[in-house]
Amino acid sequence: MTRSELISRIRAKKSVLCVGLDTDISKIPQHLLTEEDPIFAFNKAIIDATKEYTVSYKINTAFYEARGLKGWESMEKTLSYIPSDIFTIADAKRGDIGNTSTQYAKTFFEACNFDSVTIAPYMGKDSVAPFLEFEGKWGIVLGITSNEGSKDFQQLICNGQPLYEHVLQAVSSWGSPENIMFVVGATRKEQLARVRELCPDHFFLIPGVGAQGGDVATVCTHTLNKDAGILINVSRAVIYASSGTDFAEAAGAAARQYQQEMVSFL
Amino acid sequence: MTRSELISRIRAKKSVLCVGLDTDISKIPQHLLTEEDPIFAFNKAIIDATKEYTVSYKINTAFYEARGLKGWESMEKTLSYIPSDIFTIADAKRGDIGNTSTQYAKTFFEACNFDSVTIAPYMGKDSVAPFLEFEGKWGIVLGITSNEGSKDFQQLICNGQPLYEHVLQAVSSWGSPENIMFVVGATRKEQLARVRELCPDHFFLIPGVGAQGGDVATVCTHTLNKDAGILINVSRAVIYASSGTDFAEAAGAAARQYQQEMVSFL
Repeated sequence: MTRSELISRIRAKKSVLCVGLDTDISKIPQHLLTEEDPIFAFNKAIIDATKEYTVSYKINTAFYEARGLKGWESMEKTLSYIPSDIFTIADAKRGDIGNTSTQYAKTFFEACNFDSVTIAPYMGKDSVAPFLEFEGKWGIVLGITSNEGSKDFQQLICNGQPLYEHVLQAVSSWGSPENIMFVVGATRKEQLARVRELCPDHFFLIPGVGAQGGDVATVCTHTLNKDAGILINVSRAVIYASSGTDFAEAAGAAARQYQQEMVSFL
Repeated sequence: MTRSELISRIRAKKSVLCVGLDTDISKIPQHLLTEEDPIFAFNKAIIDATKEYTVSYKINTAFYEARGLKGWESMEKTLSYIPSDIFTIADAKRGDIGNTSTQYAKTFFEACNFDSVTIAPYMGKDSVAPFLEFEGKWGIVLGITSNEGSKDFQQLICNGQPLYEHVLQAVSSWGSPENIMFVVGATRKEQLARVRELCPDHFFLIPGVGAQGGDVATVCTHTLNKDAGILINVSRAVIYASSGTDFAEAAGAAARQYQQEMVSFL
C-alpha cells in the first residue's frame, strides 16, 4: 500500500486505529478451543467486528511462531482474511546482515504479503536497506519504544543526543517517508513532540495505548501532522475486551470507542 | 546444554567451530533440487560431513522462514538431525517487550528445542530477560557485529564509551556467563581484545570468519580464555565450499581445515 492510499483510507474512515492481533491461545475465550484453528477463529471474529473502525492490523508474529507450524498457518490465514484496503503490519522486529535481511524481507513481503514489517535498528544501515527495496512495502524501524527497557540503551546520551534521536535521523536518510515509518512509544508528551519535530513527515506506529497506559488525546495532540502521520496501535484493550462469548462484540465496541475519540482530532 | 558440558565438548573435540546453516535454495547443488526436501537433504549431508569437527551448528532462521511453512519444516527436521551433544543456535535476532519475548523464547526453547537464540538488545532489559528463564538455555545478545552497519549505532560514543560497550556491561549484569553469550564480530583485533577485557568469562559467538574476511588466528589470539570461551562461526566458506556433487566432502574438508587451525590454540 502506498502512502497516499494509506492517507486516503485514514480520511475516509476518520481513524488512525491499528488493532494488534497478539493472539494468545491461553487468553482467548474457552468456547473457541474446540474449533479446528482456534487462533484463526478468534482473529476472524475480531476482524469482522473491528474492521469498520480500523485502518490497520498488526500481527505480532511471536504469538504465532510460538505454536510452530500450525501457528504459521493461523498467521497466513489471518493475513489472507484481512480486507485488502487495510494496512497490514508484521510486527516481527527483524534485522540482520544484508543477505539475511533480504531473506526476512522475502518472508514478509513475498512468502506472506504484508504491507510492512517492524525492524530493530541495532545492526545499522545494511540491516535495514533490504526492506526498502520492495515497491509499495514499508520498513517500520524502532525509534523509541514504550517499554521499561527503552531507557537502557535508547535513551543513552550519545554526542549530546539520546540514541533514539540518532536512529531517527540516520534511518530517515536511508529511505523516505514513502517507505519508512518509525515505532514511537506513547509515553511522555515531550518525547512525542520532539520526535515529530525531528521527523515532520514520517508516519509513526504508536504502541503503548491501552494496556500499556498511553492515551489517544496525548498522542494525537503531539504527533498528528497534515497527513495524519500516525497509526495508534491497541492490542489487549481491544482484542481481550471480554473473555466471554461476547468477545467479538466487546472488541468491536472498544475499537469503535477508540475511533470515536480519534474523530475530533482528525 | 550447560556451560560445563559445552566446555568439555570443546576440549574433547579440540574445536570451537560453529557451522552456520544459512541454507539458501538458490545456492545448493542443482542435483538436490529433485529431493522431496532439498534444504533438509543438503543440511543432512553437511551435518554428516562436518559433525566430527564442530561443537555447534547455527541455524539462520531467516533462510527457512523465507520459504514459509515448508521452510519451518526443513528447520525442524534439521534441528532434530543434529546430534544431541552439539550446541544448537537459533540465529533469529529476536527481542520485544516482555510478554512478546516470552513467546519468542517459547518458540525456540519449547516449540523447537534449540540450546540458544540470538537477541537484538535495542529494547533493553525486559526484552532480554525472558530468554534467561529457561534452565540450560542461552541468550546470545548482539554486542558488536561484523557488518558495515555496525558503525552506524554500535560504535556511537555514549558518555565516553561506544554503545556496544554499554550493551556488554549492562547485559552482563542481567544474567551470568552460564546463560548469556555475546555476538562479537571478528573484525579489528583491538576491539576483540577490549571486549574480552570487559567480559572475561562470557562465551562469545564470533561470526565474520570466512566469507566476511576474519581469520581464526586473530580471533583465537585475542579472545580465548581458560575455558576457551568462544565459538567461531563459519557459514558460507564451509557449506558452499563446492557447488558440485562433492559439496559434502568439500564442506567436511573445509570444516576439518578450520578445526586443525584451532588445535594449536586450544
